[in-house]
Amino acid sequence: MTAQTDAQGRLLHLLTLQGLPRASLDALLDRAQAFAEGADARQSLAGIAVCTLFFEPSTRTRLSFQRAAQRLGADVLGFDAATSSTTKGESACDTLRNIEAMDVRGFVVRHSGDGAVADLAAAAEAGTALVNAGDGRSSHPTQGLLDMLTLRQALGADFSTRRFLIVGDVKHSRVARSDLHALRTLGAGHIRVCGPAALLPDDDTLAGCEVGHDLDAALDGVDAIMMLRLQRERMEEGLVASLEDYHRDYGLDATRLRRAAPEAVVLHPGPMNRGVEITDAVADGAQSLILRQVANGVAVRMAVLEGLLAAR
Amino acid sequence: MTAQTDAQGRLLHLLTLQGLPRASLDALLDRAQAFAEGADARQSLAGIAVCTLFFEPSTRTRLSFQRAAQRLGADVLGFDAATSSTTKGESACDTLRNIEAMDVRGFVVRHSGDGAVADLAAAAEAGTALVNAGDGRSSHPTQGLLDMLTLRQALGADFSTRRFLIVGDVKHSRVARSDLHALRTLGAGHIRVCGPAALLPDDDTLAGCEVGHDLDAALDGVDAIMMLRLQRERMEEGLVASLEDYHRDYGLDATRLRRAAPEAVVLHPGPMNRGVEITDAVADGAQSLILRQVANGVAVRMAVLEGLLAAR
Amino acid sequence: MTAQTDAQGRLLHLLTLQGLPRASLDALLDRAQAFAEGADARQSLAGIAVCTLFFEPSTRTRLSFQRAAQRLGADVLGFDAATSSTTKGESACDTLRNIEAMDVRGFVVRHSGDGAVADLAAAAEAGTALVNAGDGRSSHPTQGLLDMLTLRQALGADFSTRRFLIVGDVKHSRVARSDLHALRTLGAGHIRVCGPAALLPDDDTLAGCEVGHDLDAALDGVDAIMMLRLQRERMEEGLVASLEDYHRDYGLDATRLRRAAPEAVVLHPGPMNRGVEITDAVADGAQSLILRQVANGVAVRMAVLEGLLAAR
Repeated sequence: MTAQTDAQGRLLHLLTLQGLPRASLDALLDRAQAFAEGADARQSLAGIAVCTLFFEPSTRTRLSFQRAAQRLGADVLGFDAATSSTTKGESACDTLRNIEAMDVRGFVVRHSGDGAVADLAAAAEAGTALVNAGDGRSSHPTQGLLDMLTLRQALGADFSTRRFLIVGDVKHSRVARSDLHALRTLGAGHIRVCGPAALLPDDDTLAGCEVGHDLDAALDGVDAIMMLRLQRERMEEGLVASLEDYHRDYGLDATRLRRAAPEAVVLHPGPMNRGVEITDAVADGAQSLILRQVANGVAVRMAVLEGLLAAR
Repeated sequence: MTAQTDAQGRLLHLLTLQGLPRASLDALLDRAQAFAEGADARQSLAGIAVCTLFFEPSTRTRLSFQRAAQRLGADVLGFDAATSSTTKGESACDTLRNIEAMDVRGFVVRHSGDGAVADLAAAAEAGTALVNAGDGRSSHPTQGLLDMLTLRQALGADFSTRRFLIVGDVKHSRVARSDLHALRTLGAGHIRVCGPAALLPDDDTLAGCEVGHDLDAALDGVDAIMMLRLQRERMEEGLVASLEDYHRDYGLDATRLRRAAPEAVVLHPGPMNRGVEITDAVADGAQSLILRQVANGVAVRMAVLEGLLAAR
Repeated sequence: MTAQTDAQGRLLHLLTLQGLPRASLDALLDRAQAFAEGADARQSLAGIAVCTLFFEPSTRTRLSFQRAAQRLGADVLGFDAATSSTTKGESACDTLRNIEAMDVRGFVVRHSGDGAVADLAAAAEAGTALVNAGDGRSSHPTQGLLDMLTLRQALGADFSTRRFLIVGDVKHSRVARSDLHALRTLGAGHIRVCGPAALLPDDDTLAGCEVGHDLDAALDGVDAIMMLRLQRERMEEGLVASLEDYHRDYGLDATRLRRAAPEAVVLHPGPMNRGVEITDAVADGAQSLILRQVANGVAVRMAVLEGLLAAR
């Protein structure tokens, strides 16, 4: 039991995929699949307010949650804490407690601090539900869920015979951490991780993974390739020599992709650096599921918000 | 009759609590109480548009009005005039008239200029209603109403035997002015005001109040304490020596609070400067009604918007 | 057939009024007229999402589209691409494709690049509809439509016996170009254009128009005067000597207005530079239809969004 579940194992918040039982994961993915197929739920959250509370900007993630809340019939409020001049030195906790008092039941929170969303969840009233929309480099659970839904649609629900490859800056990636937690819980047969040594974590993040630095070798026979975004600041920090070098060593192009299984699928959490970690031909090619991921993002967020806020 | 009422005394706009008759105040508070208890009104303003028009930023006040409008089923539009690059030198009046022409019936307006909202109301078409969400240091009527609702819930409707204390920068506070107008109209028995001389007004704002500069003395036996936010610019203006000095002389802590009546309640309009005008122990203590104020803010704004815009 | 219609001549996007057949124009204006008279359509786009995607800021145009979408019962999302820090170097096309994947069917797009909205429309999925809310100096079709609706209400539907005058910076004006396309299609009898030579286009934009540089002469006997906004950057570019000079030569005041037909009407797309291209007396006078234009803007945008997105 983690802080995100009650004594009966029921989800109170969605903070991380780490430790989330397989049954909970499957239930969320099943419901998301129904939404992806167009299930209507416009009255599901009627009269319930959901606030996007972003201490770190992210227009696309915010829009995805906003669309999910709209499709559930919720009222949506937005607080862009990153640019608001009106917090006036107020703590994140006071901001949350105040908006909560405005008859707001759900919060979608992004924060640059690891664990910050869990801290806020601990301070919330009973009956308030928080969804972690990304905290630091720790966790981005709805991205993990949408990646799993996308993989399940492409590969089927049995991951045990499949090979998964994550490529890039795993060290700084909350997406990769959430994917790794979910892949393990869903019984992924084989997980490879590939990237330059400076961008791979040296803690237990990669426990059980096959780790390598040669993308050509890592691609061999994999069924799914999950590319990560290369943040420009890695250059400034000296962790990567140049975009050209990175592309040469870790960029996925059509030639390299042929090393993977013939039906292998390609994922990317977006926004892409076209020509750096991925070429146009791959990003827009037949094996790319990148826009499917975006579509699944709305479905997954609907399932999460409904699960946390409806009839509770 | 003020500019905010018609010949029959009916409210056309809510610009100030000054001169608002007791019957109008009571009616708004009664309706707000019903909303605070969960009365549903989701069809009340269906199809009617309300625009938040903020010439001075305030995310929290804007969110509170937005939530109120949502709970009434209104369509909500937002115009952040403080940051909009598109007004392109247009006057506030032209901005209002333009949005008004877009089939928008209600405006929630904040402006740094004293009387600016009343000026805009005078320029509006018949049938358009403005709510003053704070103008200069003059008026913040919905804050006054939510404070009164909170006090009424805590102390009962008869204020005549009660002692009220307002502490801090009354001189620059539209909250204090609105509170004072409402307290007088509701027949408050005794009103004390306490703060450093440089932060107290020397006009007739404090007429009928007991004015002092010693917080310990002022607290003696009061039933309700309304703390005001200390704006940092008061230091820059030289009106306050330091935050430490201010806290020592005018900060409310648990020890001082014991000088008040045993059941005394503490209010603050937020956002708080914790450790300056109020300590954590008081802000989060059993006598604090600060989050209740926030909740009541939505209820009061629902009552005001419904009163101005429904079936009229 | 242009890229905005299908093989049956049905409108898929609204990109420009150039080449739009009279029957299509009339149908949109008729439907807009019904909305201007209060026709209800709150279920028309229920469950359908419309995103305002502005790569160039314009609060008023955005609000007008937002209000139109609300009155049709659509879900509205906003992406302020001009200030978003989160596009992170993403192309406009990737931004569109991503939001499109979030179950968003309609896009209202403004962009500073000529043809940029058409380029995005070409990249959109089948079933997605784009409305050009202004691109470069090329086209602003809903402004053209609202001007035509306003003129039709004032002058009747037969434009063949009427004289129209456009005054000002036609060279840089997408409004003027859209008005000219529509006026020709609707059979305007006589179109005059007046402005300083440096602000008039030297291509075929003015084909068929009577072009002059003397406003007094141009006003003679016209039935409708469409003033254009003078952008301040024209001074910086040296195209206009000073605001005072411009006002003297091309500003519309009450005296000059008397040269027009007695019932002549005055239009301006807003926001106005009062005292430059138009005086207060004219802007707020009995012959001004400027606020009527704004009201018609919502009606026209309802007609366009409904036409593109409802039951299709």
